[in-house]
Amino acid sequence: MLAGPVEIVGTGLIGTSIALACRRAGLEVLLTDSTPDHVRTATGLGAGRPRAEDDVPQLVVVAVPPDALGGVIARALDAAGPETVVTDVGSVKAGPLAAVGGHPGLSRYVGSHPMAGTEHSGPLSASAELFDGRPWAITPGPDATPAATRVVEALALVCGAVPVHLSPVEHDRAVARTSHVPHLMASLVAGTLAGAAPDHLALSGTGVRDVTRVAGGDPELYSQIISGNASAVATLLTEIRERLDLALEAVAGGDRVGLESLLAYGQAGTRAIPGKHGAAPQPMAAVRVALPDQPGGLARLFADAGDSGVNIEDVRIDHDPGRPVGLVEIDVVADRAEELRSVLESRGWATLS
Amino acid sequence: MLAGPVEIVGTGLIGTSIALACRRAGLEVLLTDSTPDHVRTATGLGAGRPRAEDDVPQLVVVAVPPDALGGVIARALDAAGPETVVTDVGSVKAGPLAAVGGHPGLSRYVGSHPMAGTEHSGPLSASAELFDGRPWAITPGPDATPAATRVVEALALVCGAVPVHLSPVEHDRAVARTSHVPHLMASLVAGTLAGAAPDHLALSGTGVRDVTRVAGGDPELYSQIISGNASAVATLLTEIRERLDLALEAVAGGDRVGLESLLAYGQAGTRAIPGKHGAAPQPMAAVRVALPDQPGGLARLFADAGDSGVNIEDVRIDHDPGRPVGLVEIDVVADRAEELRSVLESRGWATLS
Repeated sequence: MLAGPVEIVGTGLIGTSIALACRRAGLEVLLTDSTPDHVRTATGLGAGRPRAEDDVPQLVVVAVPPDALGGVIARALDAAGPETVVTDVGSVKAGPLAAVGGHPGLSRYVGSHPMAGTEHSGPLSASAELFDGRPWAITPGPDATPAATRVVEALALVCGAVPVHLSPVEHDRAVARTSHVPHLMASLVAGTLAGAAPDHLALSGTGVRDVTRVAGGDPELYSQIISGNASAVATLLTEIRERLDLALEAVAGGDRVGLESLLAYGQAGTRAIPGKHGAAPQPMAAVRVALPDQPGGLARLFADAGDSGVNIEDVRIDHDPGRPVGLVEIDVVADRAEELRSVLESRGWATLS
Repeated sequence: MLAGPVEIVGTGLIGTSIALACRRAGLEVLLTDSTPDHVRTATGLGAGRPRAEDDVPQLVVVAVPPDALGGVIARALDAAGPETVVTDVGSVKAGPLAAVGGHPGLSRYVGSHPMAGTEHSGPLSASAELFDGRPWAITPGPDATPAATRVVEALALVCGAVPVHLSPVEHDRAVARTSHVPHLMASLVAGTLAGAAPDHLALSGTGVRDVTRVAGGDPELYSQIISGNASAVATLLTEIRERLDLALEAVAGGDRVGLESLLAYGQAGTRAIPGKHGAAPQPMAAVRVALPDQPGGLARLFADAGDSGVNIEDVRIDHDPGRPVGLVEIDVVADRAEELRSVLESRGWATLS
């Protein structure tokens, strides 16, 4: 299905990672970037070779910043061969599709969106494994051919990702809900911490750290992304504002029952997020272990935990001020928590609960 | 300062943990609970002995559910000796203080609040280490004597905690900001996930998991706590609603600059949260490592990471659907990330960035 060559336009983190994954699969990769230095760097990393005039790619992957997408997709449709498929990997899909509406080559464009990335950028942070097991949304518009869609899906599979088929509009609604609005809300909460009194902030625990973590991301990039999904984000934000009004009423009005049912609805929501390997989420339990500040402690802890045979689902290390002893929280499926706890205690670890 | 005996009223998770910490320090501990079985269990755990009629504690620690606090504090002030100090460990401080206003023994009451706990409850989940390095707010009212305050501070120190002195009203404002409002906002976001389409939820990543994690807590308990801090919570929620309105305007109105400055303010807020051991927060960087699904993998990873000499600040394990290979994210101080990455790569680990 995907035989190559694959041209990458925009050799940043995502573009170069896709290039490396394609090279890992033995495909020929051509590199293009408005900054020649980036092409040289990506080439040096083994991501491919600079595109030559007479190259005819099977697939062009447009991986440029959100603002440039529409124009670069159109140019790729112009410049490529009559069979060349074009995709982009931007975080929102309806806008770029609309920007190339009416283009004679429209049937060869299938937008997509790999759900991966870090706060780093640039080719030096790239990796062929970036997409392993991640969802990769495939979002053909109404004019795209099935053959073009299959080529883009094949790219996702070559990169080790899990294709998720959605229309562009459905995709944008989905990421408003699973990414953009959570980011904005985290930012609003974090904004209340800036400038707060230090002795107030001293009472911070893991909860507020978790809620606000994602708000540490680059404001310029996220304002581009969120603005590009304004309609879906505004719709969902309006819904949240209504619930916030209900919460405020319940709190200010002493409506304990109303407040509890709102919190119960939120608790149900946390159980809706998919679990490991796409299985239905299982009830988890945390085993908390005191970790003395000595070298090799974590390795010994995981060696002992490994001996228990209980699968470790997640780990958190707690760093509240003044703690001479670290606290490691190991999440496991609930009905195996006691088993893990016993094994650790029998090896001399102090567990909390 | 704290010589004992210490009486614990309410041998649940917090009360029994305090009891165990006091026993760890060699203090005599007396146990009281409205449920005799809980006293027996706590006694069996080595947390102390049942209080007898003629006992005269130096300090009484009231650790009952929020709704019962006022009454039990008053009864403790009545029943104890003329010098006995009384504290409670509830999550909000102004309400209980007001509930005992006018009591002749008021000068012997100093509220406090250890910032610790888990989603578990009951004496069997208790541990003497629960408070190690955690903040413990000390919140004397205007009538409390300095001597009584020092006794309660000594309790926090015996439990290994870090005392933070605040007035009851300041405490309640602080935890509204660092705990109650973040919890409510996480709940509002999580509520938008309940009932969402599975193919939309398939696009969930670590961001939304972090933002909504705390919303998994018990709705009944948190509705008690938040209702008990209604005034401070409502004030802060109103402020957030105003910012939400500004965010909605910026998004719906295409005001990219306004949106970016809101996100920048949130980013600044994430840097306000205290770092390890109370030091100023340091810039962190994440080293992401592919973890094949084999036994002993985590132990080997941490053994190799330990050999690098780079201190591990936090760990996250990523479980997106379909991932056959786990992704471990190791947070270290930013200027040592490359060092850790090189060591891991030299040991054969595949790192992402």
